[in-house]
Amino acid sequence: MKILNVAIVGGTHGNELTGAYLVRRWSAYPDSISRPSFKTKLFLANPKAVEQNRRFIDEDLNRCFRMNSLASTDRGTYEALRAFYLNQMIGPKGESKHNVIFDMHTSTSNCGVMLILKDNNLINRQLAAYIQCQIPDTKILYIPPIQDDQPYLTSICPYGLTVEIGPIPQGLLRSDLIALTDEVVKHGLDYLHSLNEGRQKAVPDSIEVFEFKEEVVFPQVDDAIVGTIHHWLQDRDYEALNHGDPIFECLDGSVLAYEKQETVYPVFINEAAYYYKNVAMSLCLKKTLLTATGLELV
Amino acid sequence: MKILNVAIVGGTHGNELTGAYLVRRWSAYPDSISRPSFKTKLFLANPKAVEQNRRFIDEDLNRCFRMNSLASTDRGTYEALRAFYLNQMIGPKGESKHNVIFDMHTSTSNCGVMLILKDNNLINRQLAAYIQCQIPDTKILYIPPIQDDQPYLTSICPYGLTVEIGPIPQGLLRSDLIALTDEVVKHGLDYLHSLNEGRQKAVPDSIEVFEFKEEVVFPQVDDAIVGTIHHWLQDRDYEALNHGDPIFECLDGSVLAYEKQETVYPVFINEAAYYYKNVAMSLCLKKTLLTATGLELV
Repeated sequence: MKILNVAIVGGTHGNELTGAYLVRRWSAYPDSISRPSFKTKLFLANPKAVEQNRRFIDEDLNRCFRMNSLASTDRGTYEALRAFYLNQMIGPKGESKHNVIFDMHTSTSNCGVMLILKDNNLINRQLAAYIQCQIPDTKILYIPPIQDDQPYLTSICPYGLTVEIGPIPQGLLRSDLIALTDEVVKHGLDYLHSLNEGRQKAVPDSIEVFEFKEEVVFPQVDDAIVGTIHHWLQDRDYEALNHGDPIFECLDGSVLAYEKQETVYPVFINEAAYYYKNVAMSLCLKKTLLTATGLELV
Repeated sequence: MKILNVAIVGGTHGNELTGAYLVRRWSAYPDSISRPSFKTKLFLANPKAVEQNRRFIDEDLNRCFRMNSLASTDRGTYEALRAFYLNQMIGPKGESKHNVIFDMHTSTSNCGVMLILKDNNLINRQLAAYIQCQIPDTKILYIPPIQDDQPYLTSICPYGLTVEIGPIPQGLLRSDLIALTDEVVKHGLDYLHSLNEGRQKAVPDSIEVFEFKEEVVFPQVDDAIVGTIHHWLQDRDYEALNHGDPIFECLDGSVLAYEKQETVYPVFINEAAYYYKNVAMSLCLKKTLLTATGLELV
């Protein structure tokens, strides 16, 4: 297998400005994302949402890429139309023109550099492993598919990562996080080029991933939030949460604690983009995935 | 003079959730903001913007309180109507029912606890001085009036402060910053109560303020930002900016430096709320204001 085309996407969420800015920069100065062995193409995924500095216009674009959504003839939302368009340009899903896709996001949570695997195939694991070697604080989130046909933009292509960088507020640019996102994508391109050249860069035998388990919602009364992330837990993404540890501090002064026995690792703690869904954080388990280089590519 | 009524306002900007949350908490548990010598009343300034998690619906509410705006009969925006309503409930401006107003805001800039004086009368200076004594990292921003009739919500009342706390993204709550805002307002109430009791709490003879001088805009081409806050300057609010110091790093790799000879002190560096106006930061001068307790109250 040879990688012929790579898609780099920014502005999937319109108020996560970093990716949109990098698309603009790389469009003007494409040398830094060019590699001799494949073509790289840039996409601004949700231009109207970027213009209006909103996550989306009608619905979350990053949930619009299920096969049945793409095939539906009665979807009229702006994002459904963009998904159809992007699938034509980048995909089509299942027989995609682009072998690999990088989708650039930001988070208000203390996520640092987070690579999200929505498919744990070997190339994805190796890509994540290589980037983690280059930027050692990188964390890897694995979201196991709940069904074969996934709703995410990255599911258009057989390989790819969602790049999530933070903490950063919505609606602004930080030079340091632009530089970090730039670095992540370039390491990814370097790795892919090394594969094509038959001189695959070294990666460790395994990676530690945070495997998504479940979401935790804010305490609410009459649709109003009555408890905030406990100050102890705030910014402690990826750290162990054990039975009895505080999760929320409530309007009335009470504290809600984590009640289960199983140790979990919260991520996306206090992500502003999830308030509209009332989601306070996601809980993960720690797992190890092999990256054995001798395996056949799938 | 005796202070009879104090207004505490949250949610003036709908995506700065901290103040709105405290209004909800204090409404449920009013003891903490009650003081024996005056009445305290709570206001959620822009409920529709809070509900929609947006800064405003039609225009910035915190610029709607000029006398001629309030008197106009042809303003139909949501915020113009809210301003009229709030002026009736809190004011009316010029003969206000409430002697003092606290308006709670948040910022994405690294502002820490910032008290904004839009009127430097003696009570305001002393209020700020007292709060700064209690929370030593507190900074004071003074915005000299460009005309007598100011557009800010706080201008309804003769005395009052805008409380600006950060850094925090828009659209989320942090327990630590809720606690800090809570503390600031309570110290303010304590000071006012001490004035009423004739046992005025001690304040220093003077305060250092950052006096607003001018705004700096982002470099743009065709309405698109082509330069971001230089990584050296990011988060350096209140620190000296001298001739030659870097301000912006641009899409093409170039750096724009501060060119004037006068040392200035930037604040609101990278405030997300000002991107729509293209404002990158405000520059201030450092000044000293007296707080002499022997002066007559104005």
